[in-house]
Amino acid sequence: MSDVRPVVVVVGAGFGGLAAIKALAEEAVDVVLIDQRNHHLFQPLLYQVATAWLSPADIAAPVRSVFSRQKNLRVVLGRVTGVDASEHAVVVDLGTRQARIGYDYLVLATGARHDYFGHDHWERFAPGLKTIEDAIAIRERLLMAFERAEMATETSERDANLTVVVVGGGATGVEMAGSIVELAKAALVRDFRRIDPRQARILLVEAGPRLLPAFPEKLSAAAKTSLERLGVTVLLNSRVMDCEDGAVVVAGERIPTATVIWAAGVKASPAAAWLNAAADRAGRVLVSPDFSVPAHPNVFVVGDTAALTDAAGHVVPGVAPAARQAGRHAAAVISARVRGEPEPPPFLYRNLGNLATIGRRAAVADFGWIRLRGPIAWWLWGIVHIFFLIDFRSRLTVSINWLWSFLTYKRGARLITGDHHQAAHEV
Amino acid sequence: MSDVRPVVVVVGAGFGGLAAIKALAEEAVDVVLIDQRNHHLFQPLLYQVATAWLSPADIAAPVRSVFSRQKNLRVVLGRVTGVDASEHAVVVDLGTRQARIGYDYLVLATGARHDYFGHDHWERFAPGLKTIEDAIAIRERLLMAFERAEMATETSERDANLTVVVVGGGATGVEMAGSIVELAKAALVRDFRRIDPRQARILLVEAGPRLLPAFPEKLSAAAKTSLERLGVTVLLNSRVMDCEDGAVVVAGERIPTATVIWAAGVKASPAAAWLNAAADRAGRVLVSPDFSVPAHPNVFVVGDTAALTDAAGHVVPGVAPAARQAGRHAAAVISARVRGEPEPPPFLYRNLGNLATIGRRAAVADFGWIRLRGPIAWWLWGIVHIFFLIDFRSRLTVSINWLWSFLTYKRGARLITGDHHQAAHEV
Repeated sequence: MSDVRPVVVVVGAGFGGLAAIKALAEEAVDVVLIDQRNHHLFQPLLYQVATAWLSPADIAAPVRSVFSRQKNLRVVLGRVTGVDASEHAVVVDLGTRQARIGYDYLVLATGARHDYFGHDHWERFAPGLKTIEDAIAIRERLLMAFERAEMATETSERDANLTVVVVGGGATGVEMAGSIVELAKAALVRDFRRIDPRQARILLVEAGPRLLPAFPEKLSAAAKTSLERLGVTVLLNSRVMDCEDGAVVVAGERIPTATVIWAAGVKASPAAAWLNAAADRAGRVLVSPDFSVPAHPNVFVVGDTAALTDAAGHVVPGVAPAARQAGRHAAAVISARVRGEPEPPPFLYRNLGNLATIGRRAAVADFGWIRLRGPIAWWLWGIVHIFFLIDFRSRLTVSINWLWSFLTYKRGARLITGDHHQAAHEV
Repeated sequence: MSDVRPVVVVVGAGFGGLAAIKALAEEAVDVVLIDQRNHHLFQPLLYQVATAWLSPADIAAPVRSVFSRQKNLRVVLGRVTGVDASEHAVVVDLGTRQARIGYDYLVLATGARHDYFGHDHWERFAPGLKTIEDAIAIRERLLMAFERAEMATETSERDANLTVVVVGGGATGVEMAGSIVELAKAALVRDFRRIDPRQARILLVEAGPRLLPAFPEKLSAAAKTSLERLGVTVLLNSRVMDCEDGAVVVAGERIPTATVIWAAGVKASPAAAWLNAAADRAGRVLVSPDFSVPAHPNVFVVGDTAALTDAAGHVVPGVAPAARQAGRHAAAVISARVRGEPEPPPFLYRNLGNLATIGRRAAVADFGWIRLRGPIAWWLWGIVHIFFLIDFRSRLTVSINWLWSFLTYKRGARLITGDHHQAAHEV
């Protein structure tokens, strides 16, 4: 029968999954996207939701809406619980029932969560930042800490609530620390009567010898100087040894704090376990140079949950542009096979550069051929991020929110929702 | 001692409380605002958050930020659990501990919740709309119903998920129904593959003989015609007899539905119980013409939790402009007493008019001297609401979101957050 088209199942609506789906738009295949959320999340800006700068909807786009015109795509809202690779089917929990969805080609783009290096019970005290729910929970903790400090009757209680510890000196940790210090020292500064939010202590804790290990050393040093100028205390070569209710132990010293934010370590999704495939220490599937899984040539793994060193010997990093390129490449391989054409040459990662902001006016940028820091890098960062935001409306409202915050130092999304009394008891 | 200033405690950061606080800005008093949330909510637009049009932060402003320049105000984030009127103190749950806050004057502006007329267990199946959490929960239910319909294997399951019942034909119910029908028939129309969202049935159920009982009969009829033209089924003289899991019983008929939204009935806050004061059937405190409580002349109750017929014989309605006027009046009485000046004349409610929208292009407006309907009323409604939004940034982003939705029919805030699998099991 000529009208039986191959089915491509894509799991995960992140950067990798979306790129694969878009690349298959004109192909004679039926695409099924499965995700447990109804939206694509622009994760690089998630820290701005956590620090009350942007609203969740500013950086999230409903996937059905993103692809409403792509007629060969069907969207399934459900949680994948396993892959039956021998039967070529994915097992999905739809909430009301279980379903099996068969595939001819499978693209797993299921991403990663933060890793507590064997101390999963720390998560309660030191939440990480991967989803909108994470961001809202962190926003609530940050804002509630200032509220509790304002009402504190003892100095120790006040000081613990005015201490924020960010764990992990990668891009997320650096951007979080910079944004929190500005929240405290600019946005909140006139809003309390008993405390001065400028007295807040923001600590950035990194186990390694420098911040931003993916950047050249000079930019790492520039980032550290910029953060310290803003008022962040940067602790290098300092490992977190314990997290508990109301305190964190760093390099042997117990620091009383109501707010610890975990931006260290990444653990891949269970894709390797579903496929019974070889994985690296972070749980990422060791894929072939075309992103297929050695034992299952019709199964591809892309993005943060795949581990690959490309044909030129570059380790493909866990960043959005790399996931996009991987998704497109896997789609090209599938296209070639569907058409019976020769497969594309092995994947080569194109490094488009690295960017990280430090607060309102500074950033570091590394494009290989040029390295920038300071205000120029900051403006570049802003333009690049607005450009990559997924739809027109998000670009516009994010631009306005940023401009407004920039001019007024205010933060528009300073909402505590949920049961904050419970949150107050927890911390 | 000349520097002991009277303390005015205001409970509730709604329209009434905020108006009272602003009116006391230049007075020689210390004002304490107590609210269990950190934001003022622009409730008249809450239905647009529930229908994925606006983000929570678009219609909420942090109270500390609103009043950052008012130096005689202190903000306390906590839940009032009682009033000790004989000792002139308010009892507050701060989460970490209980506190007593003494007052010379007390203004209770604690609002209202929806009322299930003795069937409180219906709330689980038919949530109401008063807080941001309510709005997000309703948004999730609405969006999840379409997702479940798309995945349904049986016609009955699909139809129940495509049926939405809005209970209550007041302004909230009318605006919700109009907004939901447009969500289904315009915003979602291209986004599903198995269902056609235009097949969704939206029912608006009203126990009385007409919609919008606060409006003239002609406008009620115009609202009904507009809604029916959009595709809403309006059931008048129809009482809800039961709500259960997956169905609602209206006028003897069982209607299978996954989504019931409660917009009927209002129950005042427990202010009357705290004060042991006389209340009407809805629990509203029967106040004197200056909004004070007969047994406690230094305690004032304003807004939705107060019941008053003004000096001209008009019942003061439970709407935002009335709450604002009441808050200002109570503040004026307090000012006069503090200064030892004569008190202002008894309160006279100034009716600024009634407005309700019906979808994207229609509205009804009643200003007494002029009555409008159709597009002119709709534009007027939009301008008035943008004007009253509390700060500049909200005005701007709301305007943009509206314009964007108006031009594209899209809804930007179509996010399902929280554990939707649990939500799926609940319904």
